[in-house]
Amino acid sequence: MTLESQESTNLMETLRPEIVEALKMHNVEDIRLLFLPLHAADAAELLSSLDIENQKGVLEALADDLNAEILAYLEDPVRENILKLLDREDLAILLPELASDDAVEVIEQLDEDKQKEVLAAIPARDRALLEQSLTYHEKSAGRLMQREMVTVLPQWTVGQVIDIFHLNVDLPEIFHSVFVVDPQHRPIGMVPLAKLLRNKRNVLIEDIMEEKKFIKINDEMDQEDIAHIFRKYGLVSVPVINQTGILVGVIMVDDIVDVIEEEAEQDMFYLSGMSSQDLSSAVLQTVKLRLPWLLVNLGAAFISAYVISLFRGTLDKMINLAVIMAIAPSLATNAGTQTLTVIIRAFAMGKIRDYKHLLNKETLVGFLNGLLLALLTMIISVVWFKDITLGLVIGLAMVVNIVVACFVGVLIPVFLKRTPIDPALASSVFLTTITDAVGFFIFLGLASLILI
Amino acid sequence: MTLESQESTNLMETLRPEIVEALKMHNVEDIRLLFLPLHAADAAELLSSLDIENQKGVLEALADDLNAEILAYLEDPVRENILKLLDREDLAILLPELASDDAVEVIEQLDEDKQKEVLAAIPARDRALLEQSLTYHEKSAGRLMQREMVTVLPQWTVGQVIDIFHLNVDLPEIFHSVFVVDPQHRPIGMVPLAKLLRNKRNVLIEDIMEEKKFIKINDEMDQEDIAHIFRKYGLVSVPVINQTGILVGVIMVDDIVDVIEEEAEQDMFYLSGMSSQDLSSAVLQTVKLRLPWLLVNLGAAFISAYVISLFRGTLDKMINLAVIMAIAPSLATNAGTQTLTVIIRAFAMGKIRDYKHLLNKETLVGFLNGLLLALLTMIISVVWFKDITLGLVIGLAMVVNIVVACFVGVLIPVFLKRTPIDPALASSVFLTTITDAVGFFIFLGLASLILI
Repeated sequence: MTLESQESTNLMETLRPEIVEALKMHNVEDIRLLFLPLHAADAAELLSSLDIENQKGVLEALADDLNAEILAYLEDPVRENILKLLDREDLAILLPELASDDAVEVIEQLDEDKQKEVLAAIPARDRALLEQSLTYHEKSAGRLMQREMVTVLPQWTVGQVIDIFHLNVDLPEIFHSVFVVDPQHRPIGMVPLAKLLRNKRNVLIEDIMEEKKFIKINDEMDQEDIAHIFRKYGLVSVPVINQTGILVGVIMVDDIVDVIEEEAEQDMFYLSGMSSQDLSSAVLQTVKLRLPWLLVNLGAAFISAYVISLFRGTLDKMINLAVIMAIAPSLATNAGTQTLTVIIRAFAMGKIRDYKHLLNKETLVGFLNGLLLALLTMIISVVWFKDITLGLVIGLAMVVNIVVACFVGVLIPVFLKRTPIDPALASSVFLTTITDAVGFFIFLGLASLILI
Repeated sequence: MTLESQESTNLMETLRPEIVEALKMHNVEDIRLLFLPLHAADAAELLSSLDIENQKGVLEALADDLNAEILAYLEDPVRENILKLLDREDLAILLPELASDDAVEVIEQLDEDKQKEVLAAIPARDRALLEQSLTYHEKSAGRLMQREMVTVLPQWTVGQVIDIFHLNVDLPEIFHSVFVVDPQHRPIGMVPLAKLLRNKRNVLIEDIMEEKKFIKINDEMDQEDIAHIFRKYGLVSVPVINQTGILVGVIMVDDIVDVIEEEAEQDMFYLSGMSSQDLSSAVLQTVKLRLPWLLVNLGAAFISAYVISLFRGTLDKMINLAVIMAIAPSLATNAGTQTLTVIIRAFAMGKIRDYKHLLNKETLVGFLNGLLLALLTMIISVVWFKDITLGLVIGLAMVVNIVVACFVGVLIPVFLKRTPIDPALASSVFLTTITDAVGFFIFLGLASLILI
C-alpha cells in the first residue's frame, strides 16, 4: 500500500463502516475477510475504534486466528478491555508468539491472579524468561529488552555465521546486528547485518566487529536515559548486560520511539497539571486524574486572594486598582511559564549543565521583556485612567513581577530536580503561586505607598 | 564503552577539562589524541560545550582529519557557528562523505552565496543529488530521505544479492533492507536483511519479498505524517517514491527519532507561547522570540480589565468581591488548559475522530470537577467572609466558568485546525481571554444581581 498523509483516515473511512455492517449482520465470514489481511498495526487501530460489544464480536469471529501482534500494537486502555475478553488458554497460546518484550508488556497489564494463571499455562522455557523480565523495574532496560537475539563468537568466519542463519529456525523475526560474545557470554562487539553482507565468507568476525565505539547498556537503566542514548548515537538496537556483564537482551529502536513519545507526552501533560492521561479514559477516571492539580491550584488562588485582602483599605479608596491589579500577575505567569518550559525541556534532553548561566540569561530576558511590556501597559493605563502615577505604579510592578517570575522559573525546577518530585509536574503550580502572590503584593503595596 | 546513566556527565566531566587545558596550551597533539578516537556524537557534544574560540582551536588542530559525521550530529545553532569556521574547500571535501540527507541538512544552513560556492566545488554526481534534494520542501520526505540504498530485481536469487554486496564498494554504510524494484525502478517489495540471511542461496527474491504489507511513502509527505507511519508500524526504514512512482530514496528511523522529538517539543513550546526556541539562543534573540505571545496576552489581560471596569460600582459597594474575583477565572483557565492539552496531543498523535463525543466528555468532566471545586470554594468563602450568599455566588460562577473553559478548550483547537493557524500555538491565548473575560463577567454580574 502507498501511504498518503490521509492513510489512516482512509482505513477508518472505508474499512470501518464495512466492519460495523458485518458485525451488525453477525457475518463472521466477512469480518474475517476484512480483518485477517490487515497489518497488525491497522487491525489494532480498527479494533480500538470499535465499542466493546463490537470488539467482542471481532474477537469471536477471528477466534484462533487472532494475530498475537495486534496485542502488541494496542494502547494500554484498549488492551485492558481486550485482555478481559481473552481467557487464560487464549493468552497462553498468544503470548509465546510475541517477542518477549511485547509479551511482558501484555502480561504486566493483567491482574495478579490472571497473570499467575496465564504464566502457569505457558511452556516452561518461555515462562522462565517472562518471569525473569517481570522482576525488573517497570521502565527499566530489563523490561524493554527482548530476549531474542543472535550471538556469535569472534573466531567464527562470516561464512559460518551466514550458514548458521540457514540452519537455525529459532532466530528472531527482526534483527539488525549480531552481537559478538566471549566464552562467558559477555558482549565484546557487534556486526551490523549490512557489514556482515559486505564481507567475504572467509573474513573473521573479530576482524570486522565494531568494538571501540560499541555501546552497551545496563539492565537497570531507566528508559529515559536509554532514549537519550538512542537519540544521541542514532542507534537501531543496543545490547543489554546484567550486573555481571553478561549479555541478557537487546532493545530495539521501535520500542524507544514509543518511549520518546511517552516521555514527551508526560512532560507536556505534567506542565498542564495532568498525570499521564488518555483520550480513552472514561469520564469519572478523567475527573479523578485532573482534580488533584486543580485542588492545589485552588489553594494557590486563595493565597492570592489572601494577599489581596490585606489591601482592602487601599482598594476601597481607589477601585481602579481592582480593575488592573490582575494584569501584571497574569503576564508574569506567562513569562515565567515560558522560562519553565525551556528548563523542563532541557532537563528532558539532558542538556542543562550551567544553572548560573541560565539564571542570568532568563532573568535578563525577563527584565527586557518586562521593560517593553511595562512601557506599553503604562501608556495604555495612563490613557485609560488619566493618571500618570497609576501608570508608573503598574509599570514598575510589572517589571519586578516578570523578573521574579523568570528567576523562579529557573530556580523552581532546578530545586525540584533535587527532590523526588518531578519538576515537570509540580513546577507550574509553584510558579503560579509565587508569581501571583508576589505580583498582587508588589502592585497593591506600591499603590498603598505611592497613590493612597 | 559501557554507558551508565551518567555517561555524558562523565564525558563532560573528565574529557572536557583535558581538552580545555590542551587548548589553553595550544597543544595540538593532545587535542588530536583526545578528539580523534571519539564517537562523532560525543565529539559533537564536546565541541558544542566549548566557546567559539576553543571550537576554532579544535577545528584547526584536527585540520583535514575532522570527521564529517560530527557535522551531522551538531544541533542547528552550534552548527551554524562551526560552518562559519569552515571554508568552501573544507566543506566540498566533507559533504560528500556524509549520507545525502545529512549533507542536505548541513548545506541548507549555509547562506545562499556560500551554498552556491560549496555546491560548485563538489563533484558533479554528488552535486546533482544535493541540488535535487534541495528542491523539495523543508520538512518533506524528499529532504529527509537519503539517496544511498540497495535495490534488487525480483528474479534474482538470495545468493546473487549476497555476491553483489561483495563486489559493490559503493554500498551505503548502514541499511536494514534491500528494496525490490521493477524494470522502471518502481518499488514492488522489500526484503529485510535478517530475512535475506535466513534464506538459502538459491531462493528467489520474489518468493521471500514482503509486498502485501509493504509500505512506501510519497516524496512530498510532511515529516509529521511520516513520523506517524514509523510509529504506527514500528518501522526502521521506508522507501520514498516520486510522483511517477519511481523509487528515489529511503528514510531511516534515526532521522525520524529527531522529527518526533522536534514535533513534541514544538507542541510543548507552542502551548507555553514560544516558537521553537533553543537554550542556545542569545538573550536578544530569546526576547524577540518570546515577546509576541506576551504582547497578545497583554491584550487579553486588558480585555479582562475592561470587563472588571464595567463593575466598578459593584466593587465599590463590596470590596470583598475584588478579593476573590480572580479565583474562578484562575481555576477555569487551569481546567481549560488540561482539556486543551489533551486535544492538542490527540491532534499530534492523529487520534481525534469524534469531536462531538469529546465535547460532551470534556464538558461533563468540567462540570463534575467544577461542582467539587465550587463546593470547596463556597465553604472556604462562607467561613472566611461569613456571608452565605457570597459563597453561593462564587460557587455558581465557578461551575459555569469551568464548564465554559472545558467547552471552549475543545472548540478552540478544533476550530483553529481548520485555519492555517497552528492550534498548539494560538489556542491557549484564546482560551485565557475567553475564560477570564467570561469568568469576571459571570461572577461580578451575578454579584450585581444578587448581592448588591
